Amino acid sequence: MDKFFSPESVAVIGASRNETKVGYGLLKNLIDAGFEGAIYPVNPKAEEILGLECRPSASDIPGELDLAIITVPPGAVLSVIDDLGAKKVPAAVIITAGFKESGPEGARLESALLEKTSGYGMRIIGPNCLGIIDTHSRLNASFAAGTAREGNIAFFSQSGALCTAILDWSQNQHIGFSKFVSLGNKSDVDDVDLLTFLGNDDRTDVILGYLEGVRDGARFMEAAFETAKKKPVVIAKSGSTAAGARAASSHTGTLAGSEEAFRAAFAQSGIIRAESIQDLFDFATVFASKRRAGGGRVAVVTNAGGPGILAADAVEKSALTMADFTKETVAVLRKGLPETAALYNPVDVIGDADADRYRLALRAVAADPNVDMLLTILTPQAVTKPDEVAQAVRDAYAGVEKPFAVSFMGGPRVAAAIDAMSEDGLPDFEFPDRAVRALEAVHAFSQNAKREKETVERFHTDEAVVKRMLSEAAASGRLEISDAEARKIVSAYGFRTPKSSVATSGDEAASISDEIGYPVAMKIASPDILHKSDIGAVKVDIPDAKRARTAFREIINNSKDRMPDAHIWGVSVQEMIERGREVILGVSRDPQFGPLIMFGLGGVYVEVMKDVSFRIAPIGSRETDAMIREIRSFPLLRGVRGEKPVDLDALRESVLRLSQMVTDFPEIVEMDVNPLMLFPGKEGAVALDVRITVAEVKS
Amino acid sequence: MDKFFSPESVAVIGASRNETKVGYGLLKNLIDAGFEGAIYPVNPKAEEILGLECRPSASDIPGELDLAIITVPPGAVLSVIDDLGAKKVPAAVIITAGFKESGPEGARLESALLEKTSGYGMRIIGPNCLGIIDTHSRLNASFAAGTAREGNIAFFSQSGALCTAILDWSQNQHIGFSKFVSLGNKSDVDDVDLLTFLGNDDRTDVILGYLEGVRDGARFMEAAFETAKKKPVVIAKSGSTAAGARAASSHTGTLAGSEEAFRAAFAQSGIIRAESIQDLFDFATVFASKRRAGGGRVAVVTNAGGPGILAADAVEKSALTMADFTKETVAVLRKGLPETAALYNPVDVIGDADADRYRLALRAVAADPNVDMLLTILTPQAVTKPDEVAQAVRDAYAGVEKPFAVSFMGGPRVAAAIDAMSEDGLPDFEFPDRAVRALEAVHAFSQNAKREKETVERFHTDEAVVKRMLSEAAASGRLEISDAEARKIVSAYGFRTPKSSVATSGDEAASISDEIGYPVAMKIASPDILHKSDIGAVKVDIPDAKRARTAFREIINNSKDRMPDAHIWGVSVQEMIERGREVILGVSRDPQFGPLIMFGLGGVYVEVMKDVSFRIAPIGSRETDAMIREIRSFPLLRGVRGEKPVDLDALRESVLRLSQMVTDFPEIVEMDVNPLMLFPGKEGAVALDVRITVAEVKS
Repeated sequence: MDKFFSPESVAVIGASRNETKVGYGLLKNLIDAGFEGAIYPVNPKAEEILGLECRPSASDIPGELDLAIITVPPGAVLSVIDDLGAKKVPAAVIITAGFKESGPEGARLESALLEKTSGYGMRIIGPNCLGIIDTHSRLNASFAAGTAREGNIAFFSQSGALCTAILDWSQNQHIGFSKFVSLGNKSDVDDVDLLTFLGNDDRTDVILGYLEGVRDGARFMEAAFETAKKKPVVIAKSGSTAAGARAASSHTGTLAGSEEAFRAAFAQSGIIRAESIQDLFDFATVFASKRRAGGGRVAVVTNAGGPGILAADAVEKSALTMADFTKETVAVLRKGLPETAALYNPVDVIGDADADRYRLALRAVAADPNVDMLLTILTPQAVTKPDEVAQAVRDAYAGVEKPFAVSFMGGPRVAAAIDAMSEDGLPDFEFPDRAVRALEAVHAFSQNAKREKETVERFHTDEAVVKRMLSEAAASGRLEISDAEARKIVSAYGFRTPKSSVATSGDEAASISDEIGYPVAMKIASPDILHKSDIGAVKVDIPDAKRARTAFREIINNSKDRMPDAHIWGVSVQEMIERGREVILGVSRDPQFGPLIMFGLGGVYVEVMKDVSFRIAPIGSRETDAMIREIRSFPLLRGVRGEKPVDLDALRESVLRLSQMVTDFPEIVEMDVNPLMLFPGKEGAVALDVRITVAEVKS
Repeated sequence: MDKFFSPESVAVIGASRNETKVGYGLLKNLIDAGFEGAIYPVNPKAEEILGLECRPSASDIPGELDLAIITVPPGAVLSVIDDLGAKKVPAAVIITAGFKESGPEGARLESALLEKTSGYGMRIIGPNCLGIIDTHSRLNASFAAGTAREGNIAFFSQSGALCTAILDWSQNQHIGFSKFVSLGNKSDVDDVDLLTFLGNDDRTDVILGYLEGVRDGARFMEAAFETAKKKPVVIAKSGSTAAGARAASSHTGTLAGSEEAFRAAFAQSGIIRAESIQDLFDFATVFASKRRAGGGRVAVVTNAGGPGILAADAVEKSALTMADFTKETVAVLRKGLPETAALYNPVDVIGDADADRYRLALRAVAADPNVDMLLTILTPQAVTKPDEVAQAVRDAYAGVEKPFAVSFMGGPRVAAAIDAMSEDGLPDFEFPDRAVRALEAVHAFSQNAKREKETVERFHTDEAVVKRMLSEAAASGRLEISDAEARKIVSAYGFRTPKSSVATSGDEAASISDEIGYPVAMKIASPDILHKSDIGAVKVDIPDAKRARTAFREIINNSKDRMPDAHIWGVSVQEMIERGREVILGVSRDPQFGPLIMFGLGGVYVEVMKDVSFRIAPIGSRETDAMIREIRSFPLLRGVRGEKPVDLDALRESVLRLSQMVTDFPEIVEMDVNPLMLFPGKEGAVALDVRITVAEVKS
C-alpha cells in the first residue's frame, strides 16, 4: 500500500496533450502538486507532454516503476497491465471507467483484470475512480480540479463525484488532508485495506469515509474496530433507508433492514456515524486537534445569553452534560467577573466583555476538574474585539489538554479571529449547536478508544444434533422448521424448553405427565391438524394422572371425529409454563454483515412500538448487556411499580447462546424465539415457541 | 407600528460625538444607511454631530417627530419620555439597558416607564435592545456594525447579541431582510404585535424569530395562527430542555414541561419550529422564493450517484416522499439521456452531463404532475460547467411555479453559479440533506396555509355544579380533589362515570345494587381509611341482593374491627366496569400557554415508554383527532391482531369535553383522568379514576 502514497516514480499511462482529456489533467496535477519523484508520461502517439519526455509504453520506462496511473480506454487496460506486470510494478490506480459499474460485460472485464493483477502480485485502486492524493509526498494522482490542503485528515469515498465536490468545497474551509482516496469499484483495494493502512499511517490522525456498502462485513468490522481504537473513524453511509421494502417471513426479518445492520456494525466497531456530509467535516475539524475527552462534561463561556442557552439546549439533547463547576471555580469567576455576569454554566461574561474577561473565565473553567471540554461562544457586539478574544482562547487552549470548540458567530467581523484560531487547530463552528454535536463525537470516540475487544466465550453445546437436524430439514426441502423440532435445536444450545413428549396411549400419557409434573397441557400431535383448539384437541391445566388418561381419550376421539383423514402421531404432553415476561429474540441474515440479532419485549412492544435493538453476531457479554438495556421498555424488565426484576442473567445467557448458534450455523437465515418467557429473580427463562428458516441447499 | 419602520423624522436622544459610544454608532448608522427623512441628534452638550445640527432636547426639534431612538442612561429615560410625550411622539426605541433585566430596581423603573408611555399613547420597542432596521425605508436605527441587505425576510429576536451575530453573518450569505428587530425586554411591543404587523407587511414574505419565551400564550397563538396562514413563520426557541426538573404530583405534570407546551403551541398555530439557527436561515432562503408546494413529492436531478442517494435518504427520513414519475416523463428522459443514466428518481444525468442534459431532465420532471418540488444537485466533475448548468436550472425554475432547492456542492468552482442562481431567488445549500430539510419546511407551511381556524363547539354542560364543588374545595383548603368528588365534577361535563351511591344499611345496599344492576362492587366510604382492601373493606363481583346485604355487614364489621376510630359514612356501592383499553387524559397548566392537555395509553405506555401527545386547550375535533393519532401506540386503539377498534368517537368527545372544562375553569391546575376505560365499537368510555388539583385561592 505504501507504493500508492509514497512512490519514487509514477507513470501516467494514457497521458495526453489534449487539455480536455483526463490524461492531460492528471499529468498536469502530478506536476503542479510538486511531486519530487520521477514522472513518466506514457503515450505511443506523443514525444513530449507538458515538458516531459513521453514513452511509447511502460516497458520503455528506465529502471523500476512504483506506481502507474491508468487512463487508457477500458479495452486497452488488460494489455497495459501485462506491460506493467512484466516490469513488476507493485501498484496501479485505474481511473478508466467501463467496468463492473457499466453492466455484465464490464463486470467480466473487471474479473479478467483482477485475475491478471493478482497473478502479477499488483495491488490496484479502482477502476472507475478519480484517483488519489497524498499531500505529504505531494502526489496528486487525480484528475480533480485543484488539490487538497495539507493536514492530518484522510478521506476516502466510494463516490468519485463526492471527492471532487469535497475537494473544491475544502478550498474555503479550515481543513487539511493527509490522503484523499477515490475508491471507485473497489475491485482490489477496499475500505478494509484502507482502514488498516490509514490506522497505521503516522500522518493521519482522523479517518473520514463515504460508503455505500461494504464487501465483507466481518473483515470490515474487525479492521474498523482495531483502527477506531487508535484514531477517530467517521463514516457517512448512504442508502440507509432504501432497503425497507424487503419481504420477510419473521418479525425480525420485517424489522431488520440493512440500515439496522450498518448501524449495529458501526456502533460495535466504534465507527462514528456521520448523519450528513456536514457532520463528517464538522466532526473532522474537532478531531483534527487530536485531543481526547476524559468525560462528557461541557463548560460554555459566552458573551451573550441567547446563544449560551442554545448551546446548553444542544448539550442536554446530546450524550453530553453541562459541567457543574467546583466552588473554587465559581469563587474565581465571582471575584473576576462583573456582578451581572452568570457564574454558573453557561458562564455569561456579558456583552461588553473584553479579552481579559474571557481570559479569566476560560482559564478558570479549563482548569476545573469537573470540566472535560470547553465551548467558547462570541457574538460581535458593539465593543467586542474578536481578535483579542481569539488570542485569549488560544492561550487557554495551550494551557490544557482538553478538547475545545469555538463558535464565533458572525461574518466579516469574526473572520480574522477564526483564521487565527485555526492556526492552533481550534475548530470554529458557525452555530453553537453544531459545535456541541462535534464535541459529542469527540466524547464518543474517547469512550470507544477505551474499549477492549471482547472475548466471546463459548458455551458447551451439542452442535452435532443441530447439524443433523438442519441438514435433514434442508435435504427434505423443509426450509421452515417450526415447533417441536426447532425447540430441540435450541435445546441443544442450552435453551430450556417446555418438557414435552408424545404419548400413544392413555397410560403413557399418565406416566409422561407424572414425570413432567402437574399440571400439564396436552394437544394432538399430527402434521395435518393446524387449528388444534378449534376441534377440541387441546387440553390445559390437567391436574393428575387420571384426568391425563381421560384427556388422552378425548383428544384422540375429537380429532378422529372431526379430522378422520388426519395422520395422528399421538398426543403431545407438555409442561405448563407459568406466566412471566415475554421477550423476543430474533435473527436475520444481512447480506453484508451476516447474522443480525434482534431483541425486544414481546407482543405490541415489537409489533406496534418497534422497540427493538440489534447487534451483529457474535457478541460478548458487554455488548449483550448494552443491547438489552438499549430498548426503551427496558425498565419493564428491571421491574416497575415494585415488581421483581426478571432474570437478566438468564436473558443475557440466552442471547449469547443464540449468538453462538447462528455464528456456528450460517445456514440459519431467519429465526425467532418468540416468546422467550423470562421469570423473576433467578428463575431462568424458557423458549416457548421457536421458528427457524434455513437456506436452501445449493446443489 | 408603522411609525417605527417608515418614519418621516427620527431623533437620536443621547447622540454622541464619542466614537466609542452607542449614541455615536447609532447616529452614524442612521446617516450611512441613507435614510431620506429628517435626522435630529439630541444632546445638550453638543452643537453638531456628524455634520448635523444637534438640539439640546427633544422639545427643540421643529415640527412633528415620528420616532425617537433613546440611548441616554437609564436614570434619564423617564424625563426624555416626558419631553417626547409633550411633543406627541408616537414611537420610541429604547436602546438603554438597566431595566427589568438588571434586577428589582430596574424592574420598578421599567414599570414606571411603561406607565408613562401608555399615558402618552406612545409605543415603545425595548428597553435593552439593539434597535431596528428597515431596509426599504433605509432606516438603520441600531448600533450594530453594518446593516442588512435588502430582501423580503423579517427577523426579530429576543437576544440583541444574536441580532449582531446574524447581521454580521448575513454579509457573506445570499440573504436579504425587510425588517430586523431587536425586541429587548418586550415591555410594550412584543412578539404578538410584531407577528400581526409583519403578517400585514407587504414587504415581508417570510418571518423569522428567535424567542426565549412569550408573555401571553393565548394571544401569541392567535396572532401566530393568523399570520402563519399568510406567510411562513419560522421560530427558533431556546431553553427547550431546561424546564425538566419541575416537581409535580401527577403523571401529566411530570411529563409536561414548557418544551411540550411550546411544541404543541407552535404546531397548533402553524409556526415552523427551527431546531437550530442553521435551520432558521436554511428555511428562510427557500421560503424567500414565495413558492408553495402542492404536496410533498420531491424530484431529484443529479450528476452523481452518491449525493443523489444522500438526498433520497434525507427525503425518506422526512415527511416528504420521492416522486414517482409518469410514464411520459420516463419516456422523455429515456429518449434524451444516455443509456447509463438513471431515469427514475433520483435522475442521474451522469458525471459528464452538460447543461443541455440537465435542461432536458429538469424540464421533464418539473412538468410532471406527480412532482411537487425539485432538488437539483451538481458536483463539479472534470467536464462539468456549473455556470451553464445554473442557467439551465434558472430556465426550468422560470417555467414552473413549483419550489426548487439547489445543492451545487463545492467551493470556488461553483461559487459564481450559486451567485447567479441567487439572483432569481434560487436557494442553494452546501449539502443535499439540508436542502431536503428546507423543502420539508416548505411542505409543512403549504399544508398549514390550507388549514382553516377550527371552531370549537361547546357541549351542553353543568358549569354551576363544577363551580360550586371547586370553590367549596378551595375554600376548605383541599387543593387535591380525588375519587368520588372529582368523578362528580367530570360527570357534570358529560363524562360517564361508574354508577355509584353510598348505602347506610344492608337493605339500602341491596336496593342500590338492584338499581345499578349486577354484579356490583362495594367498598367502605370513609375519609380515614386509605388501604381499603388490606382490611377487607372491598368486595367485588357481588351477584345479587342477598349477597349485597352480607357484603355490607362484612365491610362495616371489618372496618370497625380494624379501624375503630375511623369516621364511617357508609358503604359505597359501585357499578362493575368490564375491562376495556385504558387511556390517560391529563391536564397541566403551563405558565405561558395555560391548559396543556396530555393523552396517552394507560400504564407502561405513559410511564415507561413516555408515549404521549400534547395540545394547548381549547382544541377542536381536528386537533383532537391528530392528537390521538400522534402517539406511537395508536394502532392498539385501532385494533391489532383482529381486535375490534375502541370507540374513537367517545375518546374524541372525552378529550373535547375535558378541553372545554379546563378552559372554563382556569383554577384547575392539574388533572388526571386515569384510566379512562375505552370500550370497543360504539360502546363508549368510562372515567374510572379522576384526580383534580385546584389553585390556592388568592386572598
